[in-house]
Amino acid sequence: MGQKLELVKNAAGRGIPAIVNGQQTVPYKGVGKHKPTGSKTAVPVRSCADYPADGNKIQPSLKAALEKCGLKDGMTISSHHHFRNGDLVMNQVFDIAAGLGVKDLVWFPSAAFPCHEPLIKHLENGVIHHIEGSLNGPLGKYASEGKMKGLAVLRSHGGRWQAVQDGEVHIDIAVIAAPTADSFGNATGDRGPSACGLLGFGLVDSLYADHVIIVTDNLVPFPCVPWQIQGNNVDYVVVLDKVGDADKIISGTTQLTKSPDRLYIAELTAKFVQAAGIMKDGFSFQAGAGGTSLAFAIYLKKFMQEKGVKARFIRGGSTKYLVEMLEEGLTDYILDGQTFDLEGVRSMRENPGHVNTSPFTSYNWHGKGNFASLLDVVVLGATEVDVNFNANVVTHSDGMMLHGIGGWQNCLFSKCTILPIPAFRNRVPIIVDKVTTLVGPGELIDVIVTERGIAINPLRQDLLDATRDSGLPIRKLTEIKTEVDDLVGGAPQKPRFTDEVIGVVKWVDGTVLDTIFKVRA
Amino acid sequence: MGQKLELVKNAAGRGIPAIVNGQQTVPYKGVGKHKPTGSKTAVPVRSCADYPADGNKIQPSLKAALEKCGLKDGMTISSHHHFRNGDLVMNQVFDIAAGLGVKDLVWFPSAAFPCHEPLIKHLENGVIHHIEGSLNGPLGKYASEGKMKGLAVLRSHGGRWQAVQDGEVHIDIAVIAAPTADSFGNATGDRGPSACGLLGFGLVDSLYADHVIIVTDNLVPFPCVPWQIQGNNVDYVVVLDKVGDADKIISGTTQLTKSPDRLYIAELTAKFVQAAGIMKDGFSFQAGAGGTSLAFAIYLKKFMQEKGVKARFIRGGSTKYLVEMLEEGLTDYILDGQTFDLEGVRSMRENPGHVNTSPFTSYNWHGKGNFASLLDVVVLGATEVDVNFNANVVTHSDGMMLHGIGGWQNCLFSKCTILPIPAFRNRVPIIVDKVTTLVGPGELIDVIVTERGIAINPLRQDLLDATRDSGLPIRKLTEIKTEVDDLVGGAPQKPRFTDEVIGVVKWVDGTVLDTIFKVRA
Repeated sequence: MGQKLELVKNAAGRGIPAIVNGQQTVPYKGVGKHKPTGSKTAVPVRSCADYPADGNKIQPSLKAALEKCGLKDGMTISSHHHFRNGDLVMNQVFDIAAGLGVKDLVWFPSAAFPCHEPLIKHLENGVIHHIEGSLNGPLGKYASEGKMKGLAVLRSHGGRWQAVQDGEVHIDIAVIAAPTADSFGNATGDRGPSACGLLGFGLVDSLYADHVIIVTDNLVPFPCVPWQIQGNNVDYVVVLDKVGDADKIISGTTQLTKSPDRLYIAELTAKFVQAAGIMKDGFSFQAGAGGTSLAFAIYLKKFMQEKGVKARFIRGGSTKYLVEMLEEGLTDYILDGQTFDLEGVRSMRENPGHVNTSPFTSYNWHGKGNFASLLDVVVLGATEVDVNFNANVVTHSDGMMLHGIGGWQNCLFSKCTILPIPAFRNRVPIIVDKVTTLVGPGELIDVIVTERGIAINPLRQDLLDATRDSGLPIRKLTEIKTEVDDLVGGAPQKPRFTDEVIGVVKWVDGTVLDTIFKVRA
Repeated sequence: MGQKLELVKNAAGRGIPAIVNGQQTVPYKGVGKHKPTGSKTAVPVRSCADYPADGNKIQPSLKAALEKCGLKDGMTISSHHHFRNGDLVMNQVFDIAAGLGVKDLVWFPSAAFPCHEPLIKHLENGVIHHIEGSLNGPLGKYASEGKMKGLAVLRSHGGRWQAVQDGEVHIDIAVIAAPTADSFGNATGDRGPSACGLLGFGLVDSLYADHVIIVTDNLVPFPCVPWQIQGNNVDYVVVLDKVGDADKIISGTTQLTKSPDRLYIAELTAKFVQAAGIMKDGFSFQAGAGGTSLAFAIYLKKFMQEKGVKARFIRGGSTKYLVEMLEEGLTDYILDGQTFDLEGVRSMRENPGHVNTSPFTSYNWHGKGNFASLLDVVVLGATEVDVNFNANVVTHSDGMMLHGIGGWQNCLFSKCTILPIPAFRNRVPIIVDKVTTLVGPGELIDVIVTERGIAINPLRQDLLDATRDSGLPIRKLTEIKTEVDDLVGGAPQKPRFTDEVIGVVKWVDGTVLDTIFKVRA
């Protein structure tokens, strides 16, 4: 549908709607500028008198559990995305809702994947009003084409915790798929036939939702240990044949890059980290699961071995590469928010040094600190950067909203944030005058590494000084941009948008950072 | 001081004050009868912008941290009792408050011990107005003599969680002593020179207090793993030379009884559990740290070995006896709320099957179930029982309030609650017509085991049937009482009270179960 809305300018100079899905917005005020007032959301007090004394909360079916939760029109249903593209639960949930004649639901996943494409029919038939959460692939395209009734609201992992905690999103029913659980509702992701590692993205749902359903395919006698989700927050337990497709749980982004350019960028990034003096005993780093990030970790590991340097902790998304570093004694801990392969799952299950975390510990901006700002260096991707170091991860150069934010915004708070990106993709330059969608403010992005050189944010004189004599190709970002533009014959063509709003990007503090528009057909 | 207050009758027929320490009370309505309404207490939303980005929350002294928290007249200061009689922190806290000229504080510990006797001077000089929490020993005597300004409010471990969660008690500053912590405030009890096992009694404080201070004598580099207390809830960290006296951390109640009578009672209890069919594969039990309870566990272990029976889980307070059972494969798990000796601490640190719990998982009545009601059998102590199976654990036969409730009330919800108690102590009969202080309603107490026979609550026809032909000395409780009274020459003399109220006993749902009066001099 897209919505023609009046826009107000926020502190980043972006026009944002004053009302989103019926709620008043707060415009972005600048990094660290919005000070929250008030209290965390109030959760109803329950009584054990209303729960079975023997602890057995099993319902005969998902339908029965949803009915017990009082499923009705307009409710918000949440879920986590630890099964990624292998989720087998949420399509069922909305099919059941459709069967019950329920309308206008809001789906509030931590992320949606291509496997959720069947939900488009429920967006069409009115069972789902809109989706608030990262929309990867087909659902993102659907929204970008202006077909979703409500606006997409894109939040970081930390922003999702903040929104629930602060009461901006009220979850009526949380459906938490769990690889192993007991009848009391204790649940874990680190074991069972659909093991996905951890359930951290569903933790906030379990704490704040009015009703919580655990759905599992591996019921064990009480107690299910560890209890990543605590049964004391759970209303009902449902046992299905299969909750996740193990083959598809593994992230599609954990393939090491084979591109010589990207390998070079990864190596350059690792060299930068070493040259800047960041790679020293007791340091910490985080690198995502993209091909370049993985390659970075492998180069860095080599340098660490050469210099005899040991990290205090590495933040995952964990992969077999990080697990090897833990097992070879190159780090004391992996602090993991999401396991990306089965070695990550095994390690989390077996190794006390492989610790499961949640968006609360790692990313929530509205807490008493979080782990993200303690990182010495973090390596992230981007679809676009601009000459002011602002970056975009949610829209492509054609304006289509195809990616979620993930932990990306939260990670920007590290002591050194590096974006290793190719200078162009499919002949489209990645360095632009102004990012299509502002997702990360430039003041938080310290270094951009391309195959044509390394650009350091002028705000980081310390990094400029530290690497001046490193022999690394340190260049001005504008210089790299001009070179690339010349090569492809001018700056990239701007995506063509209508003036209809289809979504907004939230900042980590719940304010609105930017607006996403309907793409012109 | 003691207070002459108008009393209203509650559902147990006990007179209770309508107002306690300025707050309206809810009279006890019966087991499971009081249904809470409303929401959990609202905690202020914080922002990372107000906390150090490098995660270092260390303050130079306890005084500095308390001042940063805005310590002022009338505030409520909380603490946990995992150091038991070896706590070295809380006397310092109130000395500092006295030095700062602060008055009328409320101390809200999970329990006070004889080591806190020095606080009597702060009760006298007005620094502390009153103490809400279990008062063991000298402070209990002080209160019972009517010397404390406010009323003592005795709560179970679960009731303490409920009171904080529901907003009945607002904690201004939580002081959480921790055997190991990092500068971000992550903290654990399972390691360090003052290791005490876990910090579960301080968990609710960390979640709901306005300000949280971690006090440690063993600072480790971030991350402190495990983080039993999460730094994301912590405001300040203070490092002292010593936070706990390791020798005194060990519970004084973990000595195995040598009394032939009590050993006999313990054996009889274990025999009953076997005869009633409770001791079977996959069962669960909880036994406290008292001498008789320990002896019970040792007898039960022997019977389990003889029959080849394995438990699914044992609830601690853990001791070396339970640890042996875990290590010998007689149980899959110890679910532990409090370690009572150093073997318990070691096991919790090393054994993934030795799991730390909190009053939230185990005892909180205002949750979606808790672990206590899942227990097949629990063995507890009592100072008195009456002919209706009501029991008392807080006052002695002389009326003095010398014990806290601990998890006792919460444990009554097990499938079979057994009180093994001697029929008399120091020639005072323990079975009375009416308990001095009602702490546990008789309908929840299933079996009383004395050296003169086993009495089964008539409500438990199933247990009467199961043990009819067991050869065990099953008798009527009144019959045992008459026999004991005859032996000592009549029913015990009633304690002599004034009509001045000095405290109340809360039920697990926050209602008031009974009143404690000032003892006549």
